Amino acid sequence: MSTPTAFTLPGLLPELEVVRKDFPILERTLPGDRSLVYLDSANTSQKPQCVIDAMVDHLERHNANIARAMHQLGAESTEAFEQARADVAAFLNAPRVEEVVFTKNATEALNLVANTVHLQPGDNVVITEMEHHSNIVPWQLACERSGAELRWFDLQTEGEDAGRLDLAGGDARGVIDENTKVVAFTWVSNMLGTVNPVRELADRARAVGAISVVDASQAAPQLPVDVQEAGVDLLAFTGHKVCGPTGIGVLWGRYDLLAALPPFLGGGEMIETVRMERSTFAAPPQRFEAGTPPIVEAVGLGAAVRYLGDLGLENVRRHEEAITRYALEGLATVPGLRVLGPGIDAPEGRGGAIAFELDGVHPHDIAQVLDSRGVAVRAGHHCAKPAHARYGVQSSTRMSSYLYTTPSEIDALVEGLEYTRSYFKLG
Amino acid sequence: MSTPTAFTLPGLLPELEVVRKDFPILERTLPGDRSLVYLDSANTSQKPQCVIDAMVDHLERHNANIARAMHQLGAESTEAFEQARADVAAFLNAPRVEEVVFTKNATEALNLVANTVHLQPGDNVVITEMEHHSNIVPWQLACERSGAELRWFDLQTEGEDAGRLDLAGGDARGVIDENTKVVAFTWVSNMLGTVNPVRELADRARAVGAISVVDASQAAPQLPVDVQEAGVDLLAFTGHKVCGPTGIGVLWGRYDLLAALPPFLGGGEMIETVRMERSTFAAPPQRFEAGTPPIVEAVGLGAAVRYLGDLGLENVRRHEEAITRYALEGLATVPGLRVLGPGIDAPEGRGGAIAFELDGVHPHDIAQVLDSRGVAVRAGHHCAKPAHARYGVQSSTRMSSYLYTTPSEIDALVEGLEYTRSYFKLG
Repeated sequence: MSTPTAFTLPGLLPELEVVRKDFPILERTLPGDRSLVYLDSANTSQKPQCVIDAMVDHLERHNANIARAMHQLGAESTEAFEQARADVAAFLNAPRVEEVVFTKNATEALNLVANTVHLQPGDNVVITEMEHHSNIVPWQLACERSGAELRWFDLQTEGEDAGRLDLAGGDARGVIDENTKVVAFTWVSNMLGTVNPVRELADRARAVGAISVVDASQAAPQLPVDVQEAGVDLLAFTGHKVCGPTGIGVLWGRYDLLAALPPFLGGGEMIETVRMERSTFAAPPQRFEAGTPPIVEAVGLGAAVRYLGDLGLENVRRHEEAITRYALEGLATVPGLRVLGPGIDAPEGRGGAIAFELDGVHPHDIAQVLDSRGVAVRAGHHCAKPAHARYGVQSSTRMSSYLYTTPSEIDALVEGLEYTRSYFKLG
Repeated sequence: MSTPTAFTLPGLLPELEVVRKDFPILERTLPGDRSLVYLDSANTSQKPQCVIDAMVDHLERHNANIARAMHQLGAESTEAFEQARADVAAFLNAPRVEEVVFTKNATEALNLVANTVHLQPGDNVVITEMEHHSNIVPWQLACERSGAELRWFDLQTEGEDAGRLDLAGGDARGVIDENTKVVAFTWVSNMLGTVNPVRELADRARAVGAISVVDASQAAPQLPVDVQEAGVDLLAFTGHKVCGPTGIGVLWGRYDLLAALPPFLGGGEMIETVRMERSTFAAPPQRFEAGTPPIVEAVGLGAAVRYLGDLGLENVRRHEEAITRYALEGLATVPGLRVLGPGIDAPEGRGGAIAFELDGVHPHDIAQVLDSRGVAVRAGHHCAKPAHARYGVQSSTRMSSYLYTTPSEIDALVEGLEYTRSYFKLG
């Protein structure tokens, strides 16, 4: 499959080749002189030079601990760290900067909530069958500790609702009811690409007095996340999927809600006072940021969300949609290939992750053959075992695009899959 | 005070000026053309070029998520991450690489332990009055949750035992007894510089069947930490104080002990399998590393501990001792200055943190005047409020040296303190 007109696809980022030059790793040649075709961005995104430069500048010129240090470098470092908090608040359209809590990743952010929201026997927590393990296991542990009940919306796998939650059936079976304290769900599925109706779910949570907790790990990289418009209570995402470094995540929460939560990790900087007998605690966000925070990581994340803001999240979303549509069309030409997830015209749109099976070839073998051609995809359960189980499979292959993905790279994937079929002598 | 012979102090790192060139920030000029005199390394250490370069190389050439990714970059990233684990294991002389758990900082490591060790009413936890808040608050919260009792060894402030724990009095008052489940203490005090008798405390914990939990945040940067020789059960330190980046810490634990602990944070990579109803968990260290770990930070930390290993921790320790002795001698010449902590000839040695008071000047004012001369120290409670309370003060000024500290910098501090006295018209 060769598409000489690929670069004229409507919706692509303008000057895509210029944008790609922002990412040094995309120039990399792999052993065997393969070009890199990186289609694993839902696993982690690549980093633009401006993020790397911001981190290096911080380490070489401004490094100091924050808040506690009363000197020039300490002031510079603190300012850089707090500027990053303001950048993230702007990125989310948060009403207050103090609503942004820095964690180590989205997983810690979700665990923080699951460990601090008060639950007791008789309460229930509602999740969904398409969650990443990071939004399942913390709630299982919380329910085990508290005696609350864990419920979930089912994932549908057939017909035009394939890859979507069974939200209509939910209430009828009492999934959300007056004993629901938390409704926790992903905005965009990391496996299926499904975009869930966030506002609707948040409203249904609020209607019964429950709080909504949104995993925006896949949403934040690829579409505008406006916490006010979404009407949610708490929202988590991770730095390394939005062009930032590893080692940093974000928990955003409505201030009054954060202020009502007890501390999670105890230590330096999260206290008001400490006596040996007992301690009292600082206001948010510091209450939830025990110890030395990820300082240089915050600097990198701030640079990353400014970079995304300069590109424009609406433009990034359009790019992802164009690439995803092009990929779904390309994958549809491969015999024996089944996409797990919503179809090409999903009404809520569709995120840039496409999990698929290829008849007769194990996902790991597909990934390995593609890798031998320089095409990087992920094979496995993608930390979404229950969603795979619902589809009756153990694992799948997943391609995931990002703002630097070109139609030619999708062509390379599709050609690689044709080659995989011939390699395994399938038709 | 001027000491032209300062560079001939016995014990200093050989070729100190060459070592200093490894740290780009030390070349920095501050506003007003001040040279930087960085005496705040107990707060955070500066970073050598090799650490920055390792991180940049990873971000520009090898960035990918680990373990889960089945492609060239994923393999490279995973190898770099696991190499860092091996480097840390070697740094600690750990019997097994799988005993090294990567956390976000030392605080998370200590909270992980306080949240997973089983405690119940009737049990007690023993800490000390000289702990950093990160080794107090998690145990307060754990005792509150479990009904266990919190006890502590007192800090002595007078005579030749000033700055040392009252360990003899401890047992007489039943501090450690047969109901003690945990003895948690710092190896080196971040405020006082005290080096505690780790082996003795670990042995006393073991004698009653309790586990020893050591905060090595200040020890790991400045002396050889050998977990086997120390005879401890669990030990925490943080990356940013050993020349590594923020965003990463380490929990080391005896493997059989780690294997007996339940998970703390739930999410991806720490599971064996996940069903909606319940999950089972991976073996250590993965059990305690939920979500995407601090990958580029591990790469930086690995480079940092290799750098320290190349310098030789015994050499670093001798350097710290020489500088600390020189500083204590210099500070003794300043009228009205009182050092909080052990004297110059403390039998167990003395770490490179020196907290002090200056009669008639508030610690914050001291820090500010010193900063105006380019000398960076910390003023405040240094996250050790109970130790300050025992000394009858709210706060102190602290200078803290490291492997790049020169005698001239100590001279600049002492001169700055003389200037501070004259600025405030003291004598």
